[in-house]
Amino acid sequence: MDPKIFSLFSFMDQMEGKYIHRLKEFVAIKSISESKAHRVDVVKALRWIAFRLKRLGANVSMRRLGKESIYTGDLIPLTKTDELELPDVVVASIGSDVTKRTLLIYGHVDVKQVYESEQWLHDPFDMQVRDGYLCGRGVTDDKGPLLGWLNVIEAFQKTNIFLPVNIKFVIEGMEEVGSEGLHELLNELSMSFFKNVDYVAISDNYWLGQNTPCLTYGLRGVIYFYVTVEGAERVLHSGCHGGAVVEPLTDLVKLLSALTDNQGRPLVPGIYDDVQELDPEEIKRFNTLDFLPPVYQNDIRAQGLHSNDKVELLRRRWCLPSISVHGVEHSFDQPGAPTLICKKVMGKFSVRIVPDQSSKKIAQKVTDYLEMLHQTRGSPNKLEVKVFRDGRPFLADHTCSNYKAAYTAITKVWHKEPDLTRDGAAIPIASALEQSTRKDVVLIPMGQSLDYQHESNERLAIRNFMNGMRVFALYFFQLAAIEIEGSEEEERRQMGREKWRLKMA
Amino acid sequence: MDPKIFSLFSFMDQMEGKYIHRLKEFVAIKSISESKAHRVDVVKALRWIAFRLKRLGANVSMRRLGKESIYTGDLIPLTKTDELELPDVVVASIGSDVTKRTLLIYGHVDVKQVYESEQWLHDPFDMQVRDGYLCGRGVTDDKGPLLGWLNVIEAFQKTNIFLPVNIKFVIEGMEEVGSEGLHELLNELSMSFFKNVDYVAISDNYWLGQNTPCLTYGLRGVIYFYVTVEGAERVLHSGCHGGAVVEPLTDLVKLLSALTDNQGRPLVPGIYDDVQELDPEEIKRFNTLDFLPPVYQNDIRAQGLHSNDKVELLRRRWCLPSISVHGVEHSFDQPGAPTLICKKVMGKFSVRIVPDQSSKKIAQKVTDYLEMLHQTRGSPNKLEVKVFRDGRPFLADHTCSNYKAAYTAITKVWHKEPDLTRDGAAIPIASALEQSTRKDVVLIPMGQSLDYQHESNERLAIRNFMNGMRVFALYFFQLAAIEIEGSEEEERRQMGREKWRLKMA
Repeated sequence: MDPKIFSLFSFMDQMEGKYIHRLKEFVAIKSISESKAHRVDVVKALRWIAFRLKRLGANVSMRRLGKESIYTGDLIPLTKTDELELPDVVVASIGSDVTKRTLLIYGHVDVKQVYESEQWLHDPFDMQVRDGYLCGRGVTDDKGPLLGWLNVIEAFQKTNIFLPVNIKFVIEGMEEVGSEGLHELLNELSMSFFKNVDYVAISDNYWLGQNTPCLTYGLRGVIYFYVTVEGAERVLHSGCHGGAVVEPLTDLVKLLSALTDNQGRPLVPGIYDDVQELDPEEIKRFNTLDFLPPVYQNDIRAQGLHSNDKVELLRRRWCLPSISVHGVEHSFDQPGAPTLICKKVMGKFSVRIVPDQSSKKIAQKVTDYLEMLHQTRGSPNKLEVKVFRDGRPFLADHTCSNYKAAYTAITKVWHKEPDLTRDGAAIPIASALEQSTRKDVVLIPMGQSLDYQHESNERLAIRNFMNGMRVFALYFFQLAAIEIEGSEEEERRQMGREKWRLKMA
Repeated sequence: MDPKIFSLFSFMDQMEGKYIHRLKEFVAIKSISESKAHRVDVVKALRWIAFRLKRLGANVSMRRLGKESIYTGDLIPLTKTDELELPDVVVASIGSDVTKRTLLIYGHVDVKQVYESEQWLHDPFDMQVRDGYLCGRGVTDDKGPLLGWLNVIEAFQKTNIFLPVNIKFVIEGMEEVGSEGLHELLNELSMSFFKNVDYVAISDNYWLGQNTPCLTYGLRGVIYFYVTVEGAERVLHSGCHGGAVVEPLTDLVKLLSALTDNQGRPLVPGIYDDVQELDPEEIKRFNTLDFLPPVYQNDIRAQGLHSNDKVELLRRRWCLPSISVHGVEHSFDQPGAPTLICKKVMGKFSVRIVPDQSSKKIAQKVTDYLEMLHQTRGSPNKLEVKVFRDGRPFLADHTCSNYKAAYTAITKVWHKEPDLTRDGAAIPIASALEQSTRKDVVLIPMGQSLDYQHESNERLAIRNFMNGMRVFALYFFQLAAIEIEGSEEEERRQMGREKWRLKMA
């Protein structure tokens, strides 16, 4: 082993206990972006990370995003006094050596709400070690990976090894609620701060399974919908009026049930337009992945799946749009047997979109479809469709230098070639970063598929945390070792990529 | 005016203030049968009424119903310690003169829950007088009418006028949650207490509108359903797994939306079997009723109706089955935009049934239909359909002596012939009482259609309260004046009726 790498890895091994303690401190900050009551904690978590960056000698600035204006689904419309300042974004840089490449790293400090229905074995904000796993809200999404990058930089500094790359950071606190205002900031940064960025890396997703490391080149996008149906101004007795009035909850279940067919495929007209054909090479690769439908079904504890075919299942998860209905608000949802007719109900669902779909176009198609259905049914009730969280899909070119660097780093650390995967979940920032830097964005997952992100007992294996950091360190060296571009082939690749960016913009 | 009636009515006029005060005291008892926490208040309300009956010289006994066992929809199954004693039923009689007819009166002391979403102008249990209306939970359903009967008996006693009939009472405290155990008690009473009952009266429903008094001869029945769909044991991230797993909430909205067609008509196969054809005489009568669809639509503040035709609208409300979806439990129903897939959701709906439908048959048909749909769709998720609250429809013969007596009483008090109406809501006890006494049951509504029973600002016009009591008093006299039956025509009528009872049993 290279002596530099040996001393880096030795240092990191000695630090394991401290790394865990540090993550525990980070997890303890209840930075729940969904809850206004915890907005102050989100700010606290951003300051915590900014403080650590400062200690690493980074040039840190906090960038203002302005006021929150997105529709939140609260019953009471936001008034002036309810308006909250969006948490600032941490923008930082370490090193400005013009002879080095510059890597931009993205991360987020915010976490998902803990629901009462979640069954945690302990306080989710008091991180515990259980069977080789670190357990707590946010450990794997995204506090562990984010802290990982900082730990690695510290290791370079403490072992007196020069960082092989200049590093820049963009760290936000509203990822779990749609990153409001961040796109505008990225546009602004694209003129200055992003100018000398060569590569972009994100570590905010997961392996396909438990055993094989992954490198991810594709993501779905997400669009969130609130559908409100408003009937009579009064709640009505169903005995007296049932059969005579057009019931809002009946209207709503009709609309929601018309979103998908019996095989779970979206029924919205035109929703398959612009979906990329799966290329035969990719099908071949899907077939070789470390993935078995029965193991998957057992892992997620599902009663059954829409398909038991490996490729079809991965296609459905990664390459095809899907629609999930999440909830119905304002119906009689408390225990008991009321016989009343609801007066106003709201359904919530999300649509996952895939390359090369435009979220704007799909949002319009879904809205048009719902309005058409409601009108065709002849319901006199008021329908309102609200769209927000407009997350774009992402598809990288996994043959580019950035991916090759990450691929080599992972192979060296895990002694195994990574599976090249896509992911069904959205990281809208991925395509936004590609758009604003015009550079390749690599997704290096740290956690495993069973890390329960957004769920009870979220976790991160200590092994994945430690090896993840080793991957980051080797990745820095690999990036530095990339030959200066300029070949004709690379030029063609860049031109093709630029064309795709323009199409998706 | 007959001097007896004159002194009765004069006395009642003087008592108006006291009657209102008495009702206020009755309303203040929070006898909410839906809530276990208020079970003690239900018992208190039953004691309150038993005490007043005792003071009227009634022979009162409290009949035990046993323990509650009905499925309540609570998350946690009832354990031994959670089991509650059902409130006793008040069984009372006043007078046993063999030369008089005996009238059985039914009433209930329990009220519906007050939901947070209701917009009361004052504490619903602190009855207030507003614009000639008494406002408070239970005033019109059924505390006002029930107290009315007692006030009238008191008036006879205080004015030294002999009661023209013997009176019996059956008063319960669990009407709003399905009268569990009452049917068994009625069967028991049919052998003894009901032996000498000649007529039965209930005052627990409403006028068709605001201006014309009604006499009601038909009611729909109600069956309540809980449909549970259980998917994965875990809540899943819709990004990662959407498209691959079969989602319980999608299954549920498909099932609920398949219950009715676009015109709001039930789609359950066989649900129109046994529905009585509307007889041309009845259509003619419906046409003459004091009812206008636009006025009705405005009264209930609806955006529109399934029909604007008078007869069709009344047919839908009274003579045809209907299905209302009330709520979805355990989905992500709190404000916010979670992107999770629910693991287990429950839909609640009720089916209104009509003469001559059997609730058991319809319950089975609905269950079979849902199971068939779920199976046909090929969903691997677990489906469970629970049926409870098995309320039978009711249809009286409005040409019988009991109805004629009530008709005359109403006409004399209101100086106007009552509209002969049906009602869409269920009073399961009506057919149960007919079955167990084998006598005609009359429904004499006291309140108006806009009395908001089960809703915010429930009310009862003071005029309706006072005139309602006058009707009760005259009704007693009318019953006493009925010629002793024995004509061939009456015999034929009774035989036809007996046949219908057997069919509906």
